[in-house]
Amino acid sequence: MPFHSKLKIQNSKFCKAYLRSMAQKSLPRIGILGGGQLGRMLLQAAANYPVETFVMENDPECPAAHLCDHFTLGNIKSYDDVLAFGKGLDAITIEIEHVNIEALEQLERDGVKVYPRPEVLKTIKNKILQKQFYVNNSIPTSAFEIVHNRTDVQERSYMLPAVHKLAEGGYDGKGVQLIRTHEDINKAFIGASVLEKMVDIKKEIAVMVAVSATGETALYPPVEMIFDPVLNLLDFQLCPADIPEKILWRAEAIALTVARSFKSPGLFAVEMFIDKNDEVLVNETAPRVHNSGHHTIEAHYSSQFDMLWRILLQYPLGNPHAILPSIMVNLIGEEGFSGPAVYEGLEEVLKIDNAFVHLYGKKETRGGRKMGHVTIIHKEKSDLLHKSNKIKHLLKVKA
Amino acid sequence: MPFHSKLKIQNSKFCKAYLRSMAQKSLPRIGILGGGQLGRMLLQAAANYPVETFVMENDPECPAAHLCDHFTLGNIKSYDDVLAFGKGLDAITIEIEHVNIEALEQLERDGVKVYPRPEVLKTIKNKILQKQFYVNNSIPTSAFEIVHNRTDVQERSYMLPAVHKLAEGGYDGKGVQLIRTHEDINKAFIGASVLEKMVDIKKEIAVMVAVSATGETALYPPVEMIFDPVLNLLDFQLCPADIPEKILWRAEAIALTVARSFKSPGLFAVEMFIDKNDEVLVNETAPRVHNSGHHTIEAHYSSQFDMLWRILLQYPLGNPHAILPSIMVNLIGEEGFSGPAVYEGLEEVLKIDNAFVHLYGKKETRGGRKMGHVTIIHKEKSDLLHKSNKIKHLLKVKA
Repeated sequence: MPFHSKLKIQNSKFCKAYLRSMAQKSLPRIGILGGGQLGRMLLQAAANYPVETFVMENDPECPAAHLCDHFTLGNIKSYDDVLAFGKGLDAITIEIEHVNIEALEQLERDGVKVYPRPEVLKTIKNKILQKQFYVNNSIPTSAFEIVHNRTDVQERSYMLPAVHKLAEGGYDGKGVQLIRTHEDINKAFIGASVLEKMVDIKKEIAVMVAVSATGETALYPPVEMIFDPVLNLLDFQLCPADIPEKILWRAEAIALTVARSFKSPGLFAVEMFIDKNDEVLVNETAPRVHNSGHHTIEAHYSSQFDMLWRILLQYPLGNPHAILPSIMVNLIGEEGFSGPAVYEGLEEVLKIDNAFVHLYGKKETRGGRKMGHVTIIHKEKSDLLHKSNKIKHLLKVKA
Repeated sequence: MPFHSKLKIQNSKFCKAYLRSMAQKSLPRIGILGGGQLGRMLLQAAANYPVETFVMENDPECPAAHLCDHFTLGNIKSYDDVLAFGKGLDAITIEIEHVNIEALEQLERDGVKVYPRPEVLKTIKNKILQKQFYVNNSIPTSAFEIVHNRTDVQERSYMLPAVHKLAEGGYDGKGVQLIRTHEDINKAFIGASVLEKMVDIKKEIAVMVAVSATGETALYPPVEMIFDPVLNLLDFQLCPADIPEKILWRAEAIALTVARSFKSPGLFAVEMFIDKNDEVLVNETAPRVHNSGHHTIEAHYSSQFDMLWRILLQYPLGNPHAILPSIMVNLIGEEGFSGPAVYEGLEEVLKIDNAFVHLYGKKETRGGRKMGHVTIIHKEKSDLLHKSNKIKHLLKVKA
């Protein structure tokens, strides 16, 4: 982590970190590891409360850099950087799982509140440990085997068709592949990984659960997701999910069990499959604010971002219920374009009377990059579906 | 305005302004004069759009300082400071009227978009010019006389009971007094001022009007206000105002005429009296985001802050309509307390399931200072009234 003790500041623009350090501190000091769009939206929500915010990211142009009180240029995967960043903070959270866990463990021993707890991150970051966690806590999840190479897969061909996931390092579709037939076994990953029996998916849903430091919990209604089959990135998301009451209750009970079993304050996005037999199976959990909660900004009383601040600031939990049903459309950089972002169709979308546009301020687009999202709220599902399709076709991020 | 060319930055915290200046600029550059709570909420909304934000204020600890891309310590009333701040910006706006107008005029000549236009500020800042503006544009307002001293008031005693307002410098109840009887004439202001015939007020309402650069307009529904008789600060605010349709139409037509007559893009908060004869009279106009629009953050599709960004960024206007009726409660520093703010009753208020708490992060409270607000949304007016009274009694800002 570079130290700049003699950085020159041109003209009258002050360094905010310096200016604030001149004044007496009394606000809670809360840090966020990662400065992407989730950090950006967290900081938008932070401004409703008295709090001093800190962000560390390795890109000074990241979406969250300018919205915090103190920005630190550093590597969230580095032990030294994370430790130095966290020292003296009251609490620290994450907006991405790929952070240095050992440093967070040390900070926790030093008295910094780490939400979610480092133990949770250890479990979740490794897909083998995560699967074992579900089994150990009697949480339904798809059948799986631990494999390390082609031979391992070959010997477990009874699992096919299967989803093959590297234990560590997978993200947004990377480190994950389908092994449908014996021929596919040739492309098996080398390294510790999970071979999951493919689920015959009817629907994919997610439930966000908030857990306070005192163990209180709050459940957001389930959202129903539709993925882009090519990029494995979320396209649309409907809230509440269109599922029978019996499945709703089951999904809520499972999500609550997952969140409670982690024994940690924080927000948990529990992603689940509903299979053709109406079984509910946990796919994976993110212990943080999540793409599947973006609609809560406008459509719910307490947004996922507001909720996490309440947890971090030791306030009572917020109200997770919906004000109105919603659909969220992810805005993904068009394939074949990279460079300074241009938002084609933005004017038209800004005219839609119940749509809320969020652009993350990323200067550069590239194919598949998350560049923004649009939430539509309305009491009628038909209006939501109509508008979301319209937005999907109108709004393109090109270069 | 001080220049710090060799400011030393301790440790790894970077100066955001410096960091951003290292990268290529492509986003619209928009400045805000003033860094109070209105600036803070503007910047929360700005993070939904691709924009590079600049703020100037004379207090590095002001509520908006840490939420912008570039903070400039400077005096918004100084010609040199405002001119230097505005150079190179694409557009500039205000969150308070008391700014250097001559510098804004120069910036406008230099091609910077100034919203509202300096001409508007000139008219509004001076209560005599503002009154004359209403008369010249056939906008109903209370009868008035221009006075400069006690003798002037004495000679116009037919105006009593009257409200006496200094032409310049009044704000939040300062520079305004009642002259009810002949005895009160002794305390008449010395200096150019307005003597307004007191209106027999039945209700006080406000209508926010958005005007785009292309002349499009959007009207928010009227809000109904209840003032604290001691501090002249707003206590509660109900939206929509509980007024008959005939008065609603009249108020909307008047507000639209006011906004259009200014011939400037911007947001206009038109404050009006409804008198005992159901006449609608304009009291005053603020050409900016305003306390009477805070409820729009959660209760309306496009908040007043979102709306101003749309105007500044040359986007289509947003939808001003309400998602649900609302009440907004101002959170004012308790009389007799000054020092670091303590929010008594905050826990209880955070548990109310349809209340949205906004604390402006001001470290120091003092009697009468605006420290935050709470918005409640609900379809039933009875719920709004019940909750707002509860909040008013529960939540106190002390030191």
